[in-house]
Amino acid sequence: MSEPTSPNLEKQIQLLAKQARASARPLGRASAEIRTAAIIAMADELLNSRETVEEANLKDLEAAKERGLSTAMCNRLELTGEQIDNLANALREIADAADPVGTTTRRWTRDNGLEVSKVRLPLGVILMIYESRPNVTLDAAALCVRSGNVAILRGGSEATHTNRALNQIVQDALRSAGLPATAVQLVPTQDRSAVDILLTQDEYIDLVIPRGGETLIRHVARNSRIPVVQHYKGICHIFVDQSADQAKALLIAENAKTHRPGVCNAMETLLVHRDIASEFVPQVVAVLQKRGVEIRGCETACNLVPTLKSASPEDWDTEFLDLILALRVVDGIEEAIDHIDAHGSNHTASIIAEDSETAERFTKEIDASCVMINASTRFNDGGELGLGAEMGISTTRIHAYGPMGVEALTAEKFVVVGTGQIRK
Amino acid sequence: MSEPTSPNLEKQIQLLAKQARASARPLGRASAEIRTAAIIAMADELLNSRETVEEANLKDLEAAKERGLSTAMCNRLELTGEQIDNLANALREIADAADPVGTTTRRWTRDNGLEVSKVRLPLGVILMIYESRPNVTLDAAALCVRSGNVAILRGGSEATHTNRALNQIVQDALRSAGLPATAVQLVPTQDRSAVDILLTQDEYIDLVIPRGGETLIRHVARNSRIPVVQHYKGICHIFVDQSADQAKALLIAENAKTHRPGVCNAMETLLVHRDIASEFVPQVVAVLQKRGVEIRGCETACNLVPTLKSASPEDWDTEFLDLILALRVVDGIEEAIDHIDAHGSNHTASIIAEDSETAERFTKEIDASCVMINASTRFNDGGELGLGAEMGISTTRIHAYGPMGVEALTAEKFVVVGTGQIRK
Repeated sequence: MSEPTSPNLEKQIQLLAKQARASARPLGRASAEIRTAAIIAMADELLNSRETVEEANLKDLEAAKERGLSTAMCNRLELTGEQIDNLANALREIADAADPVGTTTRRWTRDNGLEVSKVRLPLGVILMIYESRPNVTLDAAALCVRSGNVAILRGGSEATHTNRALNQIVQDALRSAGLPATAVQLVPTQDRSAVDILLTQDEYIDLVIPRGGETLIRHVARNSRIPVVQHYKGICHIFVDQSADQAKALLIAENAKTHRPGVCNAMETLLVHRDIASEFVPQVVAVLQKRGVEIRGCETACNLVPTLKSASPEDWDTEFLDLILALRVVDGIEEAIDHIDAHGSNHTASIIAEDSETAERFTKEIDASCVMINASTRFNDGGELGLGAEMGISTTRIHAYGPMGVEALTAEKFVVVGTGQIRK
Repeated sequence: MSEPTSPNLEKQIQLLAKQARASARPLGRASAEIRTAAIIAMADELLNSRETVEEANLKDLEAAKERGLSTAMCNRLELTGEQIDNLANALREIADAADPVGTTTRRWTRDNGLEVSKVRLPLGVILMIYESRPNVTLDAAALCVRSGNVAILRGGSEATHTNRALNQIVQDALRSAGLPATAVQLVPTQDRSAVDILLTQDEYIDLVIPRGGETLIRHVARNSRIPVVQHYKGICHIFVDQSADQAKALLIAENAKTHRPGVCNAMETLLVHRDIASEFVPQVVAVLQKRGVEIRGCETACNLVPTLKSASPEDWDTEFLDLILALRVVDGIEEAIDHIDAHGSNHTASIIAEDSETAERFTKEIDASCVMINASTRFNDGGELGLGAEMGISTTRIHAYGPMGVEALTAEKFVVVGTGQIRK
């Protein structure tokens, strides 16, 4: 789908970035009501334009099939019927969510009478780079508008037609609410150099959020002059301690692996304490195999269940996004933590343990955006944790860590109210 | 002071970064008590090594004088006598400060019984790049140790000898507390390419904080693969509204400009509402001129006080760091906000106004790390706002905005405690 680099591309992309920056003031200073109206208009407009969206989506689906994309990829791409209703409902939920702009998060008074508070403000202009699923186009647009941020959206090439139709909806909705249509812009070309040009527009763009595969994220992080919050892959771990309630452990392992294997918070590696391995490993293998999971075991695991396939060294570092699981028997919590440090992607790790000291050590020492005790990794999600819709899950510790809801799309400035104080 | 680029420089700097990363786990997992002990040891060690530090500082001062550095620069460089006592006390205050690592900032329960909390953890490895003042070496080291972060420090070339002596103190203190000495490292060369090599070590370094002049910051931001929090210059504004209590305004303007003109939170531009200009401008000029301030006025101001020098267009964008002030008469709040938007550096802006609606509009619309009503810009400071010691003042909205105390040197992970919950 890549178009030839035009000599005008740089000018075109710079203009887009400049227009984005110029929209930041009117959007950021618009009232919550106006921004709410724009998001509701997106939902209405989406339902009104259902046929246009479905037609565009069909074009993308046909092209995808011609190019031989996997069924899983085609499923991610599809946006028809009920999915459109769900998306409209998701937009209405974002419209209903509390507006973060201007809210005070803390307040205190100094001895000299100065009243200090921290007040949320938009980050400015956000460049979101993502792949395949076109619903992200509307989710991201609505979350940015809710938090007063201007968005530049760069979706996947396979969703080009759908994304264009959705962007039209967003811009019409913005206009109908009296906001600049350029407050949300879709990068109009799939030319990869457009992204590289955008990454140099540090004068106009405040934050880049790449969400997707390793190559994309690495490329963005290495070439951006703009701060990057990475939404990196999820190599999620569960460690079943010797103190585990094994019945819970079985249910959680099954849920974390099979509930929706293609998403980032699915479990990819299961670690089992050596002292319970001979009892637990055969059971969990049976449960998972029944659900169609292919299990790749360490030597000990393979000895316990001789039918298991042997894990290759790469398996410990792989986000399978499929019904595949790496299974390793470890000597205890120390080795479990070391394994997660070495192979995890700072996304999600859960310990199944009844011993509270062991569980606490795990939550203290594991460096992941979400660390859990006795729960499925599938709960690392903005909605499930109670944050509402999210832009994705940050796996870097700078600015935001974990699901990024509207609050994570704001900064906080200090507001100081005095009565004439001067510094002595 | 720049040394020839050695073919081994890259290896040497990579090793330094690697050692930093290797120290992150032992430091981050050390107890608060151990990290406190390390900071107290820095203070003790500083007092014990007073002569060594003073000797090293004398070498730097002599070199500075030979190179013809300004008196102001030499003053910033000086670290002797009472200044050493003050620095030791500042370290003890950081040792006394609450340890942020492992503290819970929020906690809530979901309908399914999951207990969700947000818990602070260190950012990891921080590269701090700064100029001249050698006390930053110890302040930054102590703040990083307090927040569990590993520090790589790159001070100014003019403070080389002093910084080496201080780094020795820090590393001895770390060792005495049983922590790796490599938890704080000084870049051992002033070769500028060392910085460029460090900026590519995204595998080992999590955050870069450049603090200093425009050229330094721009260079770092443009060449870093690592997220950057800029501590940029302070072009701080005060707007005196028509509703101002002019007596307060005079005192605040005097304080903001003359209390310590060489620091980033000093006022550089004063904006005065047209309706009070004929009354207020002559008064404020008299007060400031008496304190030796050179005033560069807009046309209207020069008409009101014919002896004023005319401001050049560059004056509105200049951080004078001296007894110089740009003075402009504006039509009202709208023009004041537009001026600050166009010329401010997102650092500090204060409005002097008795009318609360105007004051609120100012705090709402101004995008600066600290926005004030009826107070001197000099209060935008970690200590003055009640945050304790600071790494500097962030002027970017990503990750932290305003004074960065120990809390801003942490991330927050989600910790989820369940009783076997799975996702339906």
